[in-house]
Amino acid sequence: MSEKRIVTISRQFGSGGREVGKKLADHLHIPFYDKELIELAAKESGIDPELFEEDQGKIGKGFQLLNTIGFSLGSPITGISEMSLSDRMFLIQTEIIEQLAEKESCVLVGRCADYILADRDDVINIFIHADMTDRIQRAETDYAIKERNMEVYVNKIDKRRANYYNYYTDRRWGAANNYDACLNTSTFGIDGTANIIEVLLKSNH
Amino acid sequence: MSEKRIVTISRQFGSGGREVGKKLADHLHIPFYDKELIELAAKESGIDPELFEEDQGKIGKGFQLLNTIGFSLGSPITGISEMSLSDRMFLIQTEIIEQLAEKESCVLVGRCADYILADRDDVINIFIHADMTDRIQRAETDYAIKERNMEVYVNKIDKRRANYYNYYTDRRWGAANNYDACLNTSTFGIDGTANIIEVLLKSNH
Repeated sequence: MSEKRIVTISRQFGSGGREVGKKLADHLHIPFYDKELIELAAKESGIDPELFEEDQGKIGKGFQLLNTIGFSLGSPITGISEMSLSDRMFLIQTEIIEQLAEKESCVLVGRCADYILADRDDVINIFIHADMTDRIQRAETDYAIKERNMEVYVNKIDKRRANYYNYYTDRRWGAANNYDACLNTSTFGIDGTANIIEVLLKSNH
Repeated sequence: MSEKRIVTISRQFGSGGREVGKKLADHLHIPFYDKELIELAAKESGIDPELFEEDQGKIGKGFQLLNTIGFSLGSPITGISEMSLSDRMFLIQTEIIEQLAEKESCVLVGRCADYILADRDDVINIFIHADMTDRIQRAETDYAIKERNMEVYVNKIDKRRANYYNYYTDRRWGAANNYDACLNTSTFGIDGTANIIEVLLKSNH
């Protein structure tokens, strides 16, 4: 890819969105940020990396967690010491996402990157979803998750992702008009979807 | 296109979704149904074609309309004489959409065709949207609509399309996971979007 381009990927749990993003980044020889992003953010702030997980449903529970992990009330970033822990975590992630996007082409998975980078014109925003049967199968086989009712579990994780997104943005997670393109991996496959995104990057007018 | 394929297109008002569908159908040399579908449906039923317009917000107003146009209570289709007028219109459209899909490859715009054809495996469902500025401009220049507040008008038409879809299906209009792919014509252009759908048709695995 000659031109600098940032690809953000939002994804339903079990849709294979992370795998799509990884394949795309590998193929384009550009950096890929998912858990890696969390680690960067955690390193920056000194907060337990687990707290950055958007799937863990910890919004608004800042103070309980703060007590649980014995986190110091003093903020490492000046001027934001009166914010809640979750809001501070979001702000730290925001700064990191902005720095990454400024630096070079990359693929960013989750964490409201589409919203955070809305003002840039070198960004393409993708939402990845899949049919429930495939999502359940992927959760069981690829992610080795054991749950009595996997559909309930899958929907619960999505609900948390939606809550996180809807809380920190003025948009609704999974609504088509937030994204440049939404793609179903049950229709196009993981490789097929990654290939389509490459076509989309060339089609941007 | 050698294999038989049905493309359904749902679209935000002013997104150019109809134009995308027309270009795609022309390029693939397959029939295109939009207003044409309404005319077919109207011909079948003897009901005023205007009543088939999904944008006109007439759901649940069957009886008033029935009186207005002096429509006979006797239904041309056996066994559905006790349904409301709007439900009967939907049923007639459903039958026509099913017949069209059974017959040959085609492009179908609007009218819940994605939901009606959900059981078929030769269907690809597309949602077309666009940025508000482009939708307002298209409404003003291409459709020559004159409204004091065009954004309010554009949103009102969409609200009616959403009401129609949400009323007749168990899905939510514009939610990414209803569709195989959602595409933003502000990002990809009208021709670009039609070309991408051709790529999608080849990528279906």
